[in-house]
Order: sequence, then C-alpha cells, then structure tokens
Amino acid sequence: MQTELSKQLGVEHAVFGFTPFPAVAAAISRAGGFGVLGAVRYTAPDDLKRDLDWIEAHIDGRPYGLDVVMPAKKVEGVTEADVEAMIPDSHRQFVRDTLAKYGVPELAEGEASGWRITGWMEQVARSQLDVAFDYPIRLLANALGSPPPDVVARAHERGVLVAALAGSARHALKHKAAGIDIVVAQGYEAGGHTGEIASMVLTPEAVDAVAPLPVLAAGGIGSGRQIAAALALGAQGVWLGSLWLTTAEADLHSPALTRKLLAAGSGDTVRSRALTGKPARQLRTEWTDAWDDPHGPGTLPMPLQGLLVADAVSRIQKYEVDPLLGTPVGQIVGRMNDVRSVQAVFDDLTRGFEQAVDHVNRIAGRSGQ
Amino acid sequence: MQTELSKQLGVEHAVFGFTPFPAVAAAISRAGGFGVLGAVRYTAPDDLKRDLDWIEAHIDGRPYGLDVVMPAKKVEGVTEADVEAMIPDSHRQFVRDTLAKYGVPELAEGEASGWRITGWMEQVARSQLDVAFDYPIRLLANALGSPPPDVVARAHERGVLVAALAGSARHALKHKAAGIDIVVAQGYEAGGHTGEIASMVLTPEAVDAVAPLPVLAAGGIGSGRQIAAALALGAQGVWLGSLWLTTAEADLHSPALTRKLLAAGSGDTVRSRALTGKPARQLRTEWTDAWDDPHGPGTLPMPLQGLLVADAVSRIQKYEVDPLLGTPVGQIVGRMNDVRSVQAVFDDLTRGFEQAVDHVNRIAGRSGQ
Ligand SMILES: Cc1cc2nc3c(=O)[nH]c(=O)nc-3n(C[C@H](O)[C@H](O)[C@H](O)COP(=O)(O)O)c2cc1C
Ligand SMILES: Cc1cc2nc3c(=O)[nH]c(=O)nc-3n(C[C@H](O)[C@H](O)[C@H](O)COP(=O)(O)O)c2cc1C
Repeated sequence: MQTELSKQLGVEHAVFGFTPFPAVAAAISRAGGFGVLGAVRYTAPDDLKRDLDWIEAHIDGRPYGLDVVMPAKKVEGVTEADVEAMIPDSHRQFVRDTLAKYGVPELAEGEASGWRITGWMEQVARSQLDVAFDYPIRLLANALGSPPPDVVARAHERGVLVAALAGSARHALKHKAAGIDIVVAQGYEAGGHTGEIASMVLTPEAVDAVAPLPVLAAGGIGSGRQIAAALALGAQGVWLGSLWLTTAEADLHSPALTRKLLAAGSGDTVRSRALTGKPARQLRTEWTDAWDDPHGPGTLPMPLQGLLVADAVSRIQKYEVDPLLGTPVGQIVGRMNDVRSVQAVFDDLTRGFEQAVDHVNRIAGRSGQ
Repeated sequence: MQTELSKQLGVEHAVFGFTPFPAVAAAISRAGGFGVLGAVRYTAPDDLKRDLDWIEAHIDGRPYGLDVVMPAKKVEGVTEADVEAMIPDSHRQFVRDTLAKYGVPELAEGEASGWRITGWMEQVARSQLDVAFDYPIRLLANALGSPPPDVVARAHERGVLVAALAGSARHALKHKAAGIDIVVAQGYEAGGHTGEIASMVLTPEAVDAVAPLPVLAAGGIGSGRQIAAALALGAQGVWLGSLWLTTAEADLHSPALTRKLLAAGSGDTVRSRALTGKPARQLRTEWTDAWDDPHGPGTLPMPLQGLLVADAVSRIQKYEVDPLLGTPVGQIVGRMNDVRSVQAVFDDLTRGFEQAVDHVNRIAGRSGQ
C-alpha cells in the first residue's frame, strides 16, 4: 500500500495513526505505518520530553510525527483566570448538580485535571513545539486550523512536513494557502472535533480542491475495506484515531471505559459540544445527554466549556462513573469489539486491504489480473 | 462493473438509480443501469399507469423497478380528516405567518398539493402495487421499513425482487428476517429520509450483518471514485438518488430550484424534520431554518408534519419563492454543478470507476496488472 506520500516518509503502508499514547504511536510505526502522538494533554514540556524519549527508544528508528492543537483564533494575553471568570454561575451549578445526581466523588486536594485549558492555548502548543523540534519528528499536524506561518517555516527548515485537519474543501484550501504539505480530510463519522460532511463526500472534494497536495482520509476507517475505499476516493493514505483506543498498547486508565468501547455500536456516538464547546464526536452518555438536553443550560463556547467541565470529566474518569463515562470516539467504535495488539490490528488492515482490492478487481472484470 | 446482483437482473452496470421521474428511470436503464421509479407522489392509480406505460414505450426492453413508501407502522382506519384534526392551531398559524413573511401567494382554488398524506398511507401504496404488478417490474423497493409479508409473497410469486432501505445494521437484519432480497444501506449523507450513520461505516456493517444477501450502498455517491469505494466496502452495487435531479431528463418544474441545486455546496444541506416529521436530508433553506429554530414551534411527528406543510410546499414551489425553495437532496449536491443527460452522467460514472480501479491497483502495487 504505497503512495507518493508513504514513499516520501519512508513507510511501508500509507496508514497514519493518531494516538495520545506513546506506546501506540511507536507500535504503529514499528508495524509499518506512521504513528502520530497527540500532544494536547502535555501541559508540562518535561512530560512530553520524557514520552518522546520513550518513543525514540522503542520505535526502531522508524519515522513518526506529533499533533498539536493550535486554535485558528489566537487568544492574546488571556489567562486561565480570565476565562474562569466568564463562566456563569448557573453553569457551574449545573455541573455540581449533575455530578451530585450520580454520586460522583470529589477529587483529592491538588489532584490535577487531565483537561486543563492550557493545552489548547498557543503558548502551550509552542512550548510543545520547542521540545518536539529537538527530536527527529517527520510530521507536524495541527487540529482546529492552519498553523501560524512562523511554525510552518520552522517545520520546513527542519524538513518536517506540516499537516492540518480539515472538515470541508474550504478549510482544506485555507490550509493550502497557509503553505501546509498534507491535508487530513476528516469526515462527520470521525472521533473528535468534526464537521458535518461525511468522508464519502468530503474525501474526493478535498482531493480535488488542493491537488496536487496529498490528502489523507480520516473518519470511519477501521478495516482494509475502508482503506481501499478511501484510496479509491483519491486519498494518498488514511488517518485513523479511534481504532487504536482498544489496542493492548493503549492506556485508557479505565477498564470500565474500555468495556464501554468494546460494547458500543456505530449508533452509540454523538456529535456534541459537551466536551470542549465545539462539536466533537464521542460516546453518547448521560453526561452528553445532559448537555444536549434542550431543557438544560446548554454548552458554553470554546474554551469556556472545556474549562468548566475539566474537573468533572476527571472525576467521572477516575471514579469510572459508568453512565457518565465517555471519550472522543468515532462511529467505527461499532467495529472495535476486542482488545488486540497494534500489530494484530495492522495485519488485519493490510490483509483486508488486499482482499478488498481483489474484490473490486473481480467486479471490474479484472479478476485474471 | 458486474456483480452477482447485476448479472441476476441482467444489467451491464451495478448502478441503481432512484428517481421520481419516468424519463430519468428509463434513461438510467437504457444507459445500462437499473432505473427505479419512485411512486410516492402517484396518489391516483391512473397516473402511475400512464407513466409506467410511458416507461414501457421508452426503455428498450431493459429491466426497471418501482419504489413505494409503506411506513412500518400501520395506521388503520385513520382518515386524512382525522389526522388534520390532530394538528395544533398554533402550528397552522406558524405556517401562515412564515408564508406571509415571505409574501408567498395562495394556490388557486382546487389546485392540488403535490405532497398529500395519502401517498404515505398503506392503502395508497397497495393501490400502486395493484397497478405495478401488471407491468414487468423486476424490483420492488420500500422506504421506511420492511414491506408486509403478503406484499413480499406477492412480489416473489411474480419473480420480482424485493429491496428495502436501511439506515443501520439492525434495520438491515429486520429486513432480512422479513424475507426481502436486497438491502439498500443508506448513509447519513444521503438525500431523503436518512439515519445518523455515514456510508463509510454503514455499508460494511450492513454487508456483514445480512450476508449472503446483497447490499446496495446509497448516500453520497456521484462519481466513479465513489462507486469504486462503495464496492470496496463490500456492496454489490450502488443506489443513487440525488445525482439525477440535475439531469436534462429530470423535470423539477422549477428553473430556480435547478439553479439552487447547481450552486449548492456539500455543506448546504440539512437533516431536518421540516418536510415529513422524520429526519430527511434536504437543501437548507429559510423554510427548514424556521422549523429547526429552537424558538419556533418545532415540527410535528409523521404524518402530521407532511400534511401540515403540504400546501405550503406546493405554494413555495409553484411561485419559486427563492429563500424557501428546497428539495430532498444529499451532500453530493456539491458535485452537481451542471445539467447533463443521464447518458453523459453514466459515461462519467463508468469511466471514473475504471480510473479509480487503476488508481487503487497502482497503490496496491498491481499496476502491471
Ligand atoms: C480520543 C481521540 C482524541 C482525539 N484528539 C485529537 C487531537 O488532539 N488532535 C487532532 O488533530 N485530532 C484528534 N482526534 C481526531 C483524530 O486525529 C482523527 O482525525 C480521527 O480520530 C479520525 O477518525 P476516526 O476516529 O474515525 O478514526 C482525536 C480522536 C480521538 C478518537
Ligand atoms: C428527491 C429525493 C426523493 C427521495 N424520495 C424517496 C422515496 O420516495 N423513497 C425512497 O425509498 N427513497 C427516496 N429517496 C432516497 C433515495 O432512494 C436514495 O436512497 C438516496 O437519494 C441516496 O443517496 P444520495 O441522495 O446521496 O444519492 C429520495 C431521495 C431524493 C434525493
């Protein structure tokens, strides 16, 4: 499964894997794909350093990348306290009431939330980059907009390719104008922040809009058939996020959450603003229902919502409060039904891809070929 | 592009086309696909008879089918007047106010609405079948649920294959249990009544759920690349509805509506209950916005909503009131950018399919083949 892009990056398969877990990223690259470590949760540069060191020690010299979250709209000189002050009391009360209703215990004094606002702020993303550029990363991806020009320039100086996620052809064109190298076209069915246009329609639109820039198809991919489909749509590779969440190498810190993912069907996700204030696909839970209820207070805009619910989400996760327990995940969750190693998942993907190509060739009357 | 199903039906290409227009249905079959006439708007059996006669005279002996709408839930002994009586006055007032706001003229006395409830009722669908079974139709498709057992039996006695639309693997399994022959797996991106699961995820789920029954992929398909993708996902063919709306043979009765379709992008549709009370993808207009507005009265359940807005929709269409003018259509509308003959569209689809297969073979390292 070789495209110009996979050749350029020196990987065997044009399969890119986004993951917040260093062990998964390294395993994806070792299996012949391209692992991309999500950096948003690294608020302390030293933690990122430690995990990049770990990757370097475990990736057998294979190429890998980093994903940061630099929102397109810059918020200058605003502190976390300023944002805190913008949150209405009624919303805070709603959080307290909902947690109380389900008997969610408090965090111990000083226990940090995993979801601080800081990871979304440009200073933090920049401090992540300062760390990452000391490592031989081959790709820098950005969610939520084009990266700033100086970041693109800095990456290019070091021979690092720049990718950006896009939910529409219009976004993809903006990225192209910003000088990026790869568009990740992310469809409606994807886990995480996502738009309304489904991969079947979005992928070829993005491909045609930014040609000759390469497009990676993201959203709804979890089998070799879906990889073949994405490549038929014109993508130069695929970008998978959800599928890795139930691999043996993933570390969700919650057996209950893993069980929920394994049991969920493709109809058990929702695109909700509950997590960050922007629509993100995630497991549908009584927590997302509470926020999406027209009789509730509704969600606040980013970054207020993320800050408002940060501690609550930590508490729900830590104490595994089942009806409220969720995670970003896409519709492909319906096919994530057992825990397997990244290598086993990869073997399935590549074998399934070959079978799908055979199948299409038979239909096209090229079965002798 | 031959699958077991296309061979069984004796068509050259596994491309099924749903259309409300006899001229389009005939042209699809003449081009080597399989035309399926939508019957929902035929409230008078004689009109359907007239149009099937027309098809017979223009289809060069090629096979074709009929699509009826038999809602899964039977409404026994309920008349149109009973349903009318269930509509709150406040909703009628909202319709009047909205039409007045945009200066929509009244219909002339006795002008029939194109969207009467009757087309959705089982008696009417049955009267359509009484007509259709006198014609050599090869396929009977049903929207909104499995057809009743006696209808399936009647079709099978005549050698007519039965298809049903499904928005989830669960629906697909219900259809299989009802003895149908073909599942049309219709993704979120499709025009018309549709569920939440996108084609990329839904198609393989439905394929695996009902195997060995054949699945047709519907939703978001308008190019040969998308056909190749659908077949890679395991479908035995594709089922297209939106793409034909802007063909030369289509008869929308409204140049303004055709212009809107040609200009719309993939982000200009919405899945709204405004038309029938069940979520259906359609052009987003100020009419759908009014119904989807959280400060408005909201929509009524099927069949009330359809009855409530029937005359209003007729008036908007007849007088081409631009900001309110819409139609069911899928996200593929972004690629419907010129008026072409069905044959020209078909040539594009088949040529694009061959190119997509070449492309995937190159990536799979089978370019010599
Ligand atoms: C748990 C989770 C967290 C994610 N976080 C990010 C992120 O921080 N940055 C980003 O660019 N994309 C993020 N995404 C989106 C992925 O990069 C990817 O586009 C998406 O998962 C692809 O669709 P799929 O979920 O159907 O595989 C996340 C996805 C998941 C499932
Ligand atoms: C204008 C229009 C009317 C439709 N009406 C019906 C219908 O009466 N019965 C039905 O089974 N499907 C109906 N559909 C859905 C189509 O059968 C088909 O599943 C759908 O259009 C496929 O997705 P696409 O729009 O992306 O091609 C309609 C679609 C459109 C665009």
